[in-house]
Amino acid sequence: MTTAEPIWIYDTTLRDGAQREGLSLSLEDKLRIAHQLDQMGIPFIEGGWPGANPKDVQFFWQIKEEPLSQAEIVAFCSTRRPGRTAAEDPMLQPILSAGTRWVTVFGKSWDLHVVEGLKTTLDENLEMIRDTLSYFRSQGRRVIYDAEHWFDGYRQNPDYALETLGAAIAGGAEWLVLCDTNGGTLPQDVATITRAVSKYIVNHLASHPLDPDRPAPQIGIHTHNDSGTAVANALAAVGEGARMVQGTINGYGERCGNANLCTLIPNLQLKLGYACVREEQLAKLTDTSRLISEIVNLAPDDHAPFVGLSAFAHKGGIHVSAVERNPLTYEHIRPEQVGNRRRIVISDQAGLSNVLAKARSFGIELEKDDPTCRHILQHLKTLENEGYQFEAAEASFELLMREALGQRQRFFELQGFQARCDMAPEMNDGNSYALATIKVRIDGKDYLEAAEGNGPVSALDAALRKALVNVYPAIAQFHLTDYKVRILDGGAGTSAKTRVLVESSNGHQRWTTVGVSTNIIEASYQAVVEGLEYGLLLQNQAEAVLST
Amino acid sequence: MTTAEPIWIYDTTLRDGAQREGLSLSLEDKLRIAHQLDQMGIPFIEGGWPGANPKDVQFFWQIKEEPLSQAEIVAFCSTRRPGRTAAEDPMLQPILSAGTRWVTVFGKSWDLHVVEGLKTTLDENLEMIRDTLSYFRSQGRRVIYDAEHWFDGYRQNPDYALETLGAAIAGGAEWLVLCDTNGGTLPQDVATITRAVSKYIVNHLASHPLDPDRPAPQIGIHTHNDSGTAVANALAAVGEGARMVQGTINGYGERCGNANLCTLIPNLQLKLGYACVREEQLAKLTDTSRLISEIVNLAPDDHAPFVGLSAFAHKGGIHVSAVERNPLTYEHIRPEQVGNRRRIVISDQAGLSNVLAKARSFGIELEKDDPTCRHILQHLKTLENEGYQFEAAEASFELLMREALGQRQRFFELQGFQARCDMAPEMNDGNSYALATIKVRIDGKDYLEAAEGNGPVSALDAALRKALVNVYPAIAQFHLTDYKVRILDGGAGTSAKTRVLVESSNGHQRWTTVGVSTNIIEASYQAVVEGLEYGLLLQNQAEAVLST
Repeated sequence: MTTAEPIWIYDTTLRDGAQREGLSLSLEDKLRIAHQLDQMGIPFIEGGWPGANPKDVQFFWQIKEEPLSQAEIVAFCSTRRPGRTAAEDPMLQPILSAGTRWVTVFGKSWDLHVVEGLKTTLDENLEMIRDTLSYFRSQGRRVIYDAEHWFDGYRQNPDYALETLGAAIAGGAEWLVLCDTNGGTLPQDVATITRAVSKYIVNHLASHPLDPDRPAPQIGIHTHNDSGTAVANALAAVGEGARMVQGTINGYGERCGNANLCTLIPNLQLKLGYACVREEQLAKLTDTSRLISEIVNLAPDDHAPFVGLSAFAHKGGIHVSAVERNPLTYEHIRPEQVGNRRRIVISDQAGLSNVLAKARSFGIELEKDDPTCRHILQHLKTLENEGYQFEAAEASFELLMREALGQRQRFFELQGFQARCDMAPEMNDGNSYALATIKVRIDGKDYLEAAEGNGPVSALDAALRKALVNVYPAIAQFHLTDYKVRILDGGAGTSAKTRVLVESSNGHQRWTTVGVSTNIIEASYQAVVEGLEYGLLLQNQAEAVLST
Repeated sequence: MTTAEPIWIYDTTLRDGAQREGLSLSLEDKLRIAHQLDQMGIPFIEGGWPGANPKDVQFFWQIKEEPLSQAEIVAFCSTRRPGRTAAEDPMLQPILSAGTRWVTVFGKSWDLHVVEGLKTTLDENLEMIRDTLSYFRSQGRRVIYDAEHWFDGYRQNPDYALETLGAAIAGGAEWLVLCDTNGGTLPQDVATITRAVSKYIVNHLASHPLDPDRPAPQIGIHTHNDSGTAVANALAAVGEGARMVQGTINGYGERCGNANLCTLIPNLQLKLGYACVREEQLAKLTDTSRLISEIVNLAPDDHAPFVGLSAFAHKGGIHVSAVERNPLTYEHIRPEQVGNRRRIVISDQAGLSNVLAKARSFGIELEKDDPTCRHILQHLKTLENEGYQFEAAEASFELLMREALGQRQRFFELQGFQARCDMAPEMNDGNSYALATIKVRIDGKDYLEAAEGNGPVSALDAALRKALVNVYPAIAQFHLTDYKVRILDGGAGTSAKTRVLVESSNGHQRWTTVGVSTNIIEASYQAVVEGLEYGLLLQNQAEAVLST
């Protein structure tokens, strides 16, 4: 039983994280991310600003259909507009319609922003804060108050800034979140100012006692990385009593990003002894970081603390034997605690046990001293060097294993294909023309087929299916559910190596395959072929089970 | 005249930075980096460990032939080996031959590493430190002492750790640099432990007075980013009296990297009021960061504090007009202070004021009530709905604006192209064959060219360049520096819409263009064509400036 003091993690990847330049989230992306965060044990997930755009409204509707196991989805909005009551402000209605238990309201702390930005009086801003929070409370919501530009505001006019917190307490805020919106504050200042807030709350409650059923408001912290100290700033606030920490996965966010939860959670939990998530949830951190970078299609940062591919990489020699003898002399934590692993660069000792574990998960029994095992590992490393990646393409990895074991069935032999794309100005709709022809041999018989498509890859995919369905009617049930392309060495321009990931489905199972080539058509062809092959393998296995 | 207290910056990009996985430096690279750091006003540049590899020996020879304007090049090495005197240890001779005024010697602070790593006694380690430093002093060198694993060592055995510093003082160290070698320490601990060192030095000097001509040793700090707090850790040490800060450009380094000097220098100078480099040198920071990332051939981090492309990027309408009215309400420093600039990001949240601000940055004057302005905004939103994204493709956006204003020059007319890709099993190397033909019309004359490539896109790119270079020889200087592909609706499988971003360069400028289509060849073609067009536009502008 743990007696560690809790810190409440509040994730804003879906709202503040999406402000990152170059990142855009579909509704489907947002739902997948929310479910992953829920599995990680994140207690608060900010879903967006209902009403700001149609996607955010849909998200709140949709998430109610696919309930989370423990996380609270939070709706985000600003205080009401000046000059009317909260009840009269139509902007607040979509927030209520979102149907969340918790609402986060942000308001102005900096006098300058009140006067110049909102163009209202300092008193009206206080009333906007109190009234908005109190309205949501009257509608049965629990309220988190985000004090925007908190630290800059406090430096300019500490008395007024503190009064805005007083208004939030009066309105019923359970959390007062100090936001370093411009990201310019350094840890020492965060500590000093958070201490002042702590003191203010105590004094304020002494002179304005709360109803006996209301708990005292607690402090939260929301930092940005413009000074490269977002994580340290959050820790500094925690050191002065903050008990909610807001941030994003992989530190995504506007400009230089938000505080990175993948760094903060292990620092808080493993180093400072607070309780954020359960141990087994913390062990999902690396997977969560990488999965979310896949969903948003941004290359993961290999050098990220805790979760990066290089975070526990060691170079050869004495160092390696030393680290294996006594890891704590060269590693600040055990990588497994965050679901990462030690990597010995150059040496291939790492991974043998992974291959064994992986094989087991596919129902293939391998012994550690079986030479096939080392052979698979060798082949795997060669392919990964060429740019293949099997973490997300387990179907391709299983085919590779079966091949090494002599258990791979070839369903057809390629005799050749041609894919072409034509474009001429008379194609006035702006669409080019794509055509593919393919010849495959199955059981000694050749099948030649041609198909058109939106582009050469879809034409080739269609031609291949047309040829194969003659012999394998099950293929008619397979369809592609996802297609992803990543350029591996962008600096090589249009000659760069391309990795294609294809996700296929037969209606009740999904699997992912990979292809790599400098030629995107060839890379796509590899992934599509393995996708079909794996589907047929599943089909055969299902038939074998049925016939026993 | 400034009276700010100085902090001595010590760069170790050439030694510790080069430990980053995937980074390797040629002799030429090291020399270029050293000169750039010198121009930036960095006082200490660690050149490497002479004797550890031939490249490092050559570097120290070569740099003497191309003197720096002010920086000290420092040679790095370990303490002598156990069981012999420093004068007898041949390992130290190449350090003297390097001919530097300053030498940095690192030694063990952690008892465990002494006993398990060096396999010697705690007393012999103290003598190794004292003897090695004292030997270099006797040879006329000034000495910096790097206390390896300082913080872990201190936590395990503070008395012994402090004794190692005493040995370094006895040996003649002018700087005692506290190294968080494993990167696991958090700022609060760095502060507490640095304070203890400060106190130790005072007490030690009281009981062991120095020769009157020797200045008191000062504290330095060397941090790693494994906890995501390398910058904050260095600042915490400075807060307790450290006056030398070690780090690397862009935070390059083993595992998660070293403290990033591009973040530390502006924090120290602009926020904490210390003197590191001159104002005009600080204004070279962004250029230095990007130049060095070019030299080491790593993509710059667009989200890096202070120097990243996105560090001062603003989205959204109201926000943009506010930042233009009073930058300090939304920016923590003036971007020009570090040689960066404010960027107004164009996205579907864009309002009119963004379009106007953007136009101005391209030297295009637009009035708010000009109907063209609204027309551009409308067109922008339509294109973004189709999947175009102009945030990262400013060159395409400028072309779009010029088109709306009737200022777009068409350099050629496409008559048609065909791109094809063939594959047959007899192509045993696994590579397919790609060929493209293209016909373009320029000033009424048709040019037909064909080219092969790694894939159909590179073949088409090559054929297009071949055709255009006939009339536009400048194109021979353009090259692609990055190529990115994103599938927009992966669920549509191989018929999905594809967005291609192409970054081009003419050797001294870089620009990015975008193309979107369900056909990847067509999307790539659009982006490549706009890339060439924009390059020619820049060329014309440069010629216009020269001829005035």
